[in-house]
Amino acid sequence: MEADLVIIGAGSGGYEAGIYAYRRGLRTVLVELAPDTVGGNCLNKGCIPSKYMRHGAKLIETFSSMEGWGIVPKGYSIDYKKLKEGRDNTVVTIRENFKKFAKQINLPIIYGRGIIKDPNTVFVEGAEETIKTKFILVATGSRPVGVGNLVPDGKYVLDTDQIWDIEEVPRKVLIVGGGAVGVEFAYIFKMYGSDVVLVELQRRVLPSDDIPEDSARYLGRKLKSLGVDIRTKTTVESWEKTESGIKAKLSDGTEVEADFILLAVGRRPNTSNIGLEEVGVEIDEKGFIKVNEFSQTSVENIYACGDVTSPLMLAHKSMYEGKIAVNHMLGGRDWKRSDRVVPKIIYSALEVASVGLTEDQAEDEGYEVKVGVTSFVTNPKAMDDGENEGFVRIVADEETGEILGCHIVGPNAGELIHQVVHMIRDSKDVEFASKTMYSHPSLSEAIGQSASEIYYGPITWTKR
Amino acid sequence: MEADLVIIGAGSGGYEAGIYAYRRGLRTVLVELAPDTVGGNCLNKGCIPSKYMRHGAKLIETFSSMEGWGIVPKGYSIDYKKLKEGRDNTVVTIRENFKKFAKQINLPIIYGRGIIKDPNTVFVEGAEETIKTKFILVATGSRPVGVGNLVPDGKYVLDTDQIWDIEEVPRKVLIVGGGAVGVEFAYIFKMYGSDVVLVELQRRVLPSDDIPEDSARYLGRKLKSLGVDIRTKTTVESWEKTESGIKAKLSDGTEVEADFILLAVGRRPNTSNIGLEEVGVEIDEKGFIKVNEFSQTSVENIYACGDVTSPLMLAHKSMYEGKIAVNHMLGGRDWKRSDRVVPKIIYSALEVASVGLTEDQAEDEGYEVKVGVTSFVTNPKAMDDGENEGFVRIVADEETGEILGCHIVGPNAGELIHQVVHMIRDSKDVEFASKTMYSHPSLSEAIGQSASEIYYGPITWTKR
Repeated sequence: MEADLVIIGAGSGGYEAGIYAYRRGLRTVLVELAPDTVGGNCLNKGCIPSKYMRHGAKLIETFSSMEGWGIVPKGYSIDYKKLKEGRDNTVVTIRENFKKFAKQINLPIIYGRGIIKDPNTVFVEGAEETIKTKFILVATGSRPVGVGNLVPDGKYVLDTDQIWDIEEVPRKVLIVGGGAVGVEFAYIFKMYGSDVVLVELQRRVLPSDDIPEDSARYLGRKLKSLGVDIRTKTTVESWEKTESGIKAKLSDGTEVEADFILLAVGRRPNTSNIGLEEVGVEIDEKGFIKVNEFSQTSVENIYACGDVTSPLMLAHKSMYEGKIAVNHMLGGRDWKRSDRVVPKIIYSALEVASVGLTEDQAEDEGYEVKVGVTSFVTNPKAMDDGENEGFVRIVADEETGEILGCHIVGPNAGELIHQVVHMIRDSKDVEFASKTMYSHPSLSEAIGQSASEIYYGPITWTKR
Repeated sequence: MEADLVIIGAGSGGYEAGIYAYRRGLRTVLVELAPDTVGGNCLNKGCIPSKYMRHGAKLIETFSSMEGWGIVPKGYSIDYKKLKEGRDNTVVTIRENFKKFAKQINLPIIYGRGIIKDPNTVFVEGAEETIKTKFILVATGSRPVGVGNLVPDGKYVLDTDQIWDIEEVPRKVLIVGGGAVGVEFAYIFKMYGSDVVLVELQRRVLPSDDIPEDSARYLGRKLKSLGVDIRTKTTVESWEKTESGIKAKLSDGTEVEADFILLAVGRRPNTSNIGLEEVGVEIDEKGFIKVNEFSQTSVENIYACGDVTSPLMLAHKSMYEGKIAVNHMLGGRDWKRSDRVVPKIIYSALEVASVGLTEDQAEDEGYEVKVGVTSFVTNPKAMDDGENEGFVRIVADEETGEILGCHIVGPNAGELIHQVVHMIRDSKDVEFASKTMYSHPSLSEAIGQSASEIYYGPITWTKR
């Protein structure tokens, strides 16, 4: 078999790159482990099913405020089977749509394990197919890791590959790791009726440098107000099986009993045993493939995108990098990777969205920083919708007014942030953001107001 | 009393212009009829209370799909008093916040009727205060109109000033007018349990030229599927009082009984009896004040913004025009009005958002048009949220790829549209919109996909 491009891994990044390569006229072949792993981690065991459950959690949360809108609910019961069924149907529908479409445009998917034999040859184990190709794109993703004595076993200690299989709402769950996945499941399980203890090693949830202190703490307070028992600066020292689940000793001296431990401590790139080192692709000490700004590896016709390239493991980052790789294969030299334009969004009790630099990061880069903050507390649309929590924070260069970063917590943060993604990509300043006509009432107005706070000087009277 | 600027009318436009003038250093005085009309029509009898009720309607609609998320509701009852109370509290809170803030920054509000005595003098009837001023901004807004034999009486025929006072959910309501207000209330009353008949003279709901056929018809179908009885190309020929409300004869030969008629046929500018003609401000035959691109009237130091200037009566248009007026007073000449960048959003059973040109309008202006459409039906985030209806439609110039318009129907259309508002304002093309990194999964991805459909050529496999 011959191709212009073989993409190893048909997850979000590989699949999107495949479609893009097709648009650009490359004879492309996708290699994926099995028919039911098309779409990769995001679709099958990540963002898609978790967002589904998170929507259910939001629905449950509305019950407590409906009366303000004249709706007096008579209660509800939870049917976890139906949740699971709805969730899994959605995943399967998207996956089958993917496959159907690939078939429709004659984009072949070969099922098996893709191994790079030499820079122009991929062998697919299982399909026993050898493909000669001009280019290779490695998009094999990542897998969850254990930590210390917390080794996923699918029963007492579940990782994020295994959590989907539980058959009922846990009575109590101990979540280890307060990053994106941890706070997401904390909210989901809490709303569906579990007691939740969330343990985080660092001093706050969402400890990533890309997320400002204010955003992280705002979400932490909200989760606590919903009853999530958050223990920061805490670890699990030991744990044991009990009749009904597990009992864990925490470093704060307490003991926690729970049905199981959900491990949300991180992921490791899938870069072993696929022939990378053998053909000379450089890999760093943590297992990540080294790539340049065009997603090109140290072997010039081999590219890599997504989770295999860096710890910032986001589906859309992979989708973007894959397209940049394909563009580069075709001679494009002006479209490059830039971490500055990567939206980072967490869907928990509130949406927490970031793009660009935090104040700390901007100062580290030598900028004199100005910040404009607008609260959703007094935003009319947010008030109408009963979701007036959170804020929009814009970080700008004091000298030029250029927008360096934006951090939104609150309703629709995950969509709103894109307005600023476009702007940062285009080096827009706060004058630009201030002078757009924002619909009234809208959440988007808070973006204009934050920019105006910087452009005209502060006037805000609202308290966060 | 002396001032640099007197703003007659502290509705959305006047209030926003006042804050802006304060930021820019003008000694500004706001004149408003009474303490409880601060915020104007939008806040007190328009977009804010209706958006509140619309959120309640959305909540009710979720009951029918919750089971897919494992939530089995036991039913609900409606308490209209609580809806009203919550709604009115929200309005009052926003209004009091406004006033408190004005006080805090020493922006005076004089209560009474502002009359222009000469281009530098405003007399406030009621307060009996005469203000000498350099500039005047007229922001007196508009009021609902009756039509033919449909004269608002507050009991049988209610206009959009009166609908807020009803004490319970109507058994049945006849809505006359299928524009923004009509389709909004049709959805609200239907969800709260009323039978709703919606009568529209034109051949579709949302008959405005600014809203494309596809958007209007998509919403019409959705309303019908929820049980709203829509009668297009129909008028009310006559009506009479009955024991329980009204009985109307429609032009389609049928009779409709209802508790009352809600009149949603349009508004008229408040430009009479405030001294405009007397000082030489030109007014057109429909009562609108003639203004140039800087919101300046035919009298050079008198400006006007919002509903008094054109039939496109939108709070944010007024807010924008007021700021442009103030900027012009201070010597600014580069910030101008442009209808191309006005977002137009309807919040009904679906959100319907438009900015810029429709295909028809673009062709009328001589463009060769290319269109990219992406459905929300297969959008993963929309599927997760159970709101996968609608689409994103981008209209571009075939030759340059410049984005001329965007029309979104579906979840969060009213926020999503702002991404394209920014782009149109900055003359961005489809390549720009295509190459942004959109978060996955997100609704925003549909904007990038629609742009890519034009930039790379069509690939879409989804059906609307």
